[in-house]
Amino acid sequence: MKPAASPHSQKRMGTLYLVPTPLDFGCDGQGPLDEVLPQATIVRAATLQHWVCENAKSARGFIKRIGEVSPLCASIQEQQLQEMPREVHKKGDTGFDARSLLAPALQGLDMGLLSEAGMPAIADPGASVVRAAHTLGIEVQPLIGPVSLMLALAASGLNGQNFAFVGYVPSEPALRAQRIKALETLALKTGQTQMFIETPYRNEAVLRTLLEVLQAGTRLAASMGLTLEKCRHYSGTPTDWKRERWALNNQTPAVFAIGP
Amino acid sequence: MKPAASPHSQKRMGTLYLVPTPLDFGCDGQGPLDEVLPQATIVRAATLQHWVCENAKSARGFIKRIGEVSPLCASIQEQQLQEMPREVHKKGDTGFDARSLLAPALQGLDMGLLSEAGMPAIADPGASVVRAAHTLGIEVQPLIGPVSLMLALAASGLNGQNFAFVGYVPSEPALRAQRIKALETLALKTGQTQMFIETPYRNEAVLRTLLEVLQAGTRLAASMGLTLEKCRHYSGTPTDWKRERWALNNQTPAVFAIGP
Repeated sequence: MKPAASPHSQKRMGTLYLVPTPLDFGCDGQGPLDEVLPQATIVRAATLQHWVCENAKSARGFIKRIGEVSPLCASIQEQQLQEMPREVHKKGDTGFDARSLLAPALQGLDMGLLSEAGMPAIADPGASVVRAAHTLGIEVQPLIGPVSLMLALAASGLNGQNFAFVGYVPSEPALRAQRIKALETLALKTGQTQMFIETPYRNEAVLRTLLEVLQAGTRLAASMGLTLEKCRHYSGTPTDWKRERWALNNQTPAVFAIGP
Repeated sequence: MKPAASPHSQKRMGTLYLVPTPLDFGCDGQGPLDEVLPQATIVRAATLQHWVCENAKSARGFIKRIGEVSPLCASIQEQQLQEMPREVHKKGDTGFDARSLLAPALQGLDMGLLSEAGMPAIADPGASVVRAAHTLGIEVQPLIGPVSLMLALAASGLNGQNFAFVGYVPSEPALRAQRIKALETLALKTGQTQMFIETPYRNEAVLRTLLEVLQAGTRLAASMGLTLEKCRHYSGTPTDWKRERWALNNQTPAVFAIGP
């Protein structure tokens, strides 16, 4: 005979897993998933059927790749995907109330949070969903996978014991130059490495600005095509960059870092 | 007949691989390595015989664990380990000239850089070695693995599109309170999440200070025991922390984050 209702018979809530994805989205030459994700991340992702994502189409593509290396708990057709609303995509999304996206977890189902590339909620939307999970008392578990910013930082040779990531620099040339000068001043004054990104098609323009405005002694690092075959990490003073003719292209995502 | 010396017959230099290690160093319950490292990281690490590390003893322990899942290119006894000098261990190490540690790479041998836990050169020494590699024209390749700061940031629900990691907070109580207040002011003014760490045996003291000095509306997140079975992620206002009686212990490494 079953015992009467007790605190222990209370419905268990699901866990929200933060599922990192490969950095090869939209790039040529997608490699095998187990090259970039630990087995535990792949196996956990294969057990999930309920997702919050940036874009349902690319999320399905990722789940399909998971299924190629670990049996999925449900077919691609049966996967339940909810997209985060557009307004949280680009800028900080901590003001958005994402609780309604987490209904499956409240019903006891485990869920996955996905962004387009790398770790959700880092240089990508997702923080509002994580915050909503904490508010609702839903357990949050991040899984291990690639984080482009940290691969770039480690490879930069710049200070990794004090660093900041500030998102995108302005696209308007004069504002961009002004912002980069302010970041350099901060980095030289405090020793804190300053990291930023831009959309790939402005890589060459950003590099031109950097080489124009940075002081001779400042170190500039850029990582391009992280985790891809064509991955390159450059690090040196503006003089080194010019002498070695290091170049970026306008197709491959890049991460920039400056510091003393 | 071999062709005469040409630019192409110039001796190839080795690559410096930045090899992430599990976060379970010094903690109970070490799990299987392929739970936390992708196959490509394990396989690459197994091909290396020349290392720069923080501590030779624990580096040997890690290489032994690699060997349990992928055949090593050389026995543990044949592994060549160089420790980074003591002075670069704790604080920013970008002032140290590490070129002499990279002699094997100049001779064409691939090398690995290891720190005690997680990604070398991030919240850990190693940046001086990476910088020396760039100076010498040695290719640098970071491998994918756990980065405690990013697991904690993703799980915090705080802004991951603008964040800083500032290292350790002062151990002296008054200075610690002052530093935390300054970090809170910066986070609330700019929206930039401020992350920091302390040695585990001061976790409880740091939490007490945080709950004393933070404003009512500030969000405090702490991740404890990252990637371990006993891993916990807490995130909420000081009021939430007190109501839920969330607690840290003085044994398990923790990462702290504050923001609006």
